[in-house]
Amino acid sequence: MNMGATTILSEFASGTRAADISAEAIAATKRHILDCAGVGLAATAEPAGRIVLDITREQGGAPQARVFGSSLRTSAISAAWANGSLSHLLDYDDTGFSHPTACILPAALALAEEAGATGADLTAAVCVGLEVFERMSLSGRQHEPELRRRGFHPTSLYGCSAAAAAAGNIVRLNPGQMAVAIGLAAANAGGLTQHFGTWGKGIHAGNAARAGVTSVLLARKDYFADPDGIDGEYGFFSAFHGTGNYNLGKVADGLGTHWSIVDPGLTIKRYPCCGGNLRALDAARGLLEEHGIRFDDVARLEVDVHPDLLCTVRFHKPTQGFRGKFSLDYVLAAMLLDGRVDLDSFSDEYCNSSRMRASLDKVQINTHPEWPDDAVSRRKSPVTITMKDGRKFTKTVEKVRGSPGNPMTRDELLGKYRGCASRVLKGERLERSIVALENLEKLATAKELIDTLTI
Amino acid sequence: MNMGATTILSEFASGTRAADISAEAIAATKRHILDCAGVGLAATAEPAGRIVLDITREQGGAPQARVFGSSLRTSAISAAWANGSLSHLLDYDDTGFSHPTACILPAALALAEEAGATGADLTAAVCVGLEVFERMSLSGRQHEPELRRRGFHPTSLYGCSAAAAAAGNIVRLNPGQMAVAIGLAAANAGGLTQHFGTWGKGIHAGNAARAGVTSVLLARKDYFADPDGIDGEYGFFSAFHGTGNYNLGKVADGLGTHWSIVDPGLTIKRYPCCGGNLRALDAARGLLEEHGIRFDDVARLEVDVHPDLLCTVRFHKPTQGFRGKFSLDYVLAAMLLDGRVDLDSFSDEYCNSSRMRASLDKVQINTHPEWPDDAVSRRKSPVTITMKDGRKFTKTVEKVRGSPGNPMTRDELLGKYRGCASRVLKGERLERSIVALENLEKLATAKELIDTLTI
Repeated sequence: MNMGATTILSEFASGTRAADISAEAIAATKRHILDCAGVGLAATAEPAGRIVLDITREQGGAPQARVFGSSLRTSAISAAWANGSLSHLLDYDDTGFSHPTACILPAALALAEEAGATGADLTAAVCVGLEVFERMSLSGRQHEPELRRRGFHPTSLYGCSAAAAAAGNIVRLNPGQMAVAIGLAAANAGGLTQHFGTWGKGIHAGNAARAGVTSVLLARKDYFADPDGIDGEYGFFSAFHGTGNYNLGKVADGLGTHWSIVDPGLTIKRYPCCGGNLRALDAARGLLEEHGIRFDDVARLEVDVHPDLLCTVRFHKPTQGFRGKFSLDYVLAAMLLDGRVDLDSFSDEYCNSSRMRASLDKVQINTHPEWPDDAVSRRKSPVTITMKDGRKFTKTVEKVRGSPGNPMTRDELLGKYRGCASRVLKGERLERSIVALENLEKLATAKELIDTLTI
Repeated sequence: MNMGATTILSEFASGTRAADISAEAIAATKRHILDCAGVGLAATAEPAGRIVLDITREQGGAPQARVFGSSLRTSAISAAWANGSLSHLLDYDDTGFSHPTACILPAALALAEEAGATGADLTAAVCVGLEVFERMSLSGRQHEPELRRRGFHPTSLYGCSAAAAAAGNIVRLNPGQMAVAIGLAAANAGGLTQHFGTWGKGIHAGNAARAGVTSVLLARKDYFADPDGIDGEYGFFSAFHGTGNYNLGKVADGLGTHWSIVDPGLTIKRYPCCGGNLRALDAARGLLEEHGIRFDDVARLEVDVHPDLLCTVRFHKPTQGFRGKFSLDYVLAAMLLDGRVDLDSFSDEYCNSSRMRASLDKVQINTHPEWPDDAVSRRKSPVTITMKDGRKFTKTVEKVRGSPGNPMTRDELLGKYRGCASRVLKGERLERSIVALENLEKLATAKELIDTLTI
């Protein structure tokens, strides 16, 4: 049998249930659901998040789904857009094969209540969405750097179809409907890295979640669309990569037995900024802690990078705090100054403080065009601190804290969640949400979880 | 002053009012608004249109805007999606620089009532949107065939930003907000030609209208996004065409004095199918009428084409009526059989009738890879009819009826409108809508027009 990639992914996304997924994959998926919910909740307390909530409220809608950290009940499509945008707004959501969870979880949540899904159903749907995302991404991975350099944001390229897979799994689309949903969603794939460093980037995940849910609603009514939207001659891969520049062979290999959320897995971010900064931040933090370095004693902090990294973390000495999330010198200056980088590190006030500007003056980026152009070199970023007394300390981090090879402990993960969610959920409420998230696969209804994440 | 394309388009889209637009451009825009409203109304009576209406109804929403041919009042975002999808569903909407009006009019309408826009305001906003669409399209026109061949559908590539320009004009965004709206919308650009010949294509225009309105609502609240979304290093043009493969010089030339809706103008379709079929259909119809040809006397109908044309009208002897819209042999067989091609020509019943299958057997497509690969040759499609008695008649049409060089008369235009709109609007109601559409620029409120297009 010679099935196309859309068909293979659709049969998988349509038929996979919690019982088909390994315990390890279920456990990993739960951690990422918890993390995504936390960063989504945190965003509701930010100016960008408030605008997303305001627009969602003003548009109204049938009370089908709910929005993180609010009392809003709105349509499934609208809730998917709001929660997707919120989850990605702060660049604090998980990363690895781009930012899948922020597209996928909101899409599954949007239809979970109406479908009467259990906690296990929700977990399975998200795991399925993550798998579809990574399989699509893998198929063109070697050409992904070129796509990024041109301006395409992989999150929303693969996120649309992955969101459709998750939402379609929740409402039990049959394989034919699923192919329509995944293919229609692929026709909504977009996203521009031009918006990195602004509130525009968060909307990419919202658009993906919305595209996924809209496509599922159409497919469920047996809407007539092409069944080969991903791999057809004029489909997603041909459009974005061009014929010959992708390999769909990786779609089928081990599908249903190998789980991408376990291997390669995703990184849970320790800092609310672009993933391109994480290695350097961990290195700088390590140096500060290991040598008990005080800001006043530092003459210079240098970071060595391949020029490709600066296509992403490309703003230098920004004067808007939010831009700092995509500025390597900014985050290192914040770390150097305070020994930490958190949600408060990106306010305009902090950004323009004389202390922060003085710290920025100490940070220097050295680019190395002579480094090989491979994935490892493109992300490597050793940090060197030169003290006023002439001493030099250097550190290179291979596996950032929170990555699959160096995972956060449960305490660290819950610490991050509490820091995020406590901006909206207080006391008992906050603790109840943790219990629900940690026991998600045992909940009789996904609704019980959603109750704890809303007000 | 060295302004970027996003800035130039934003200042134009923000500041242009009806008084700034030539009378000829206003008159042309009105004809296209009338035509788009008609085909949007017609779609509400089709199975695909009913699904779009059902989903829109089920999602609910604040009563901000209305949907063609229905009593639905819903949110601006939701109405834009519904009307955009409806307007493009039947492939009966205007064409030329792709299908702009189906993306633009629904976006402007979605915010027109709330903004208290006049009929003149609405006309101006649509004219502005059309201009932005064509300026963006022109900038990469020489590379557009390659984009299409890969799978990108230009309608929704340019339609998102054009819809934002029109909707932003209606609500009077300032230039900075407009740049955010146009750029955010560009990050939602997508659409796959894989969905041609299915109901999936119509959704592309709905997605564009929705992206435009969403982006305008964000921008109006001073959402922070990149101001160079179109022309930035990682913006729309770089992403879709790649550096060096576009020329933004055409954005500024004559902007505000030269009007694209007048020159080059758009074609109003005589037949509800892909524009790639129009020349051959006019040729076949001409031969049938000029020579009084009866179906039974015809041995063969041949059409000669450049292979590029068949990338679009690529289905042969389809067995689903809707696919026939993108099938050159199908539409010619219908014309040969009945001397007309209309909304009824694409039902499954008609498609699978023995008469129609017999007619399909008489139609032959001859491809000419040796023809030059230029825009004229790619669209040329002379038709030859060979009679059973051995006589041969050939006809080539350069300018299809409805195109700017061979425009429909007012009677023809109104005839098409009546044929479409009468599926939903009856008697007096129908005539009132024509009066409103023909006098649009004199209406005190756009609401008066919308009243006539809804139930």
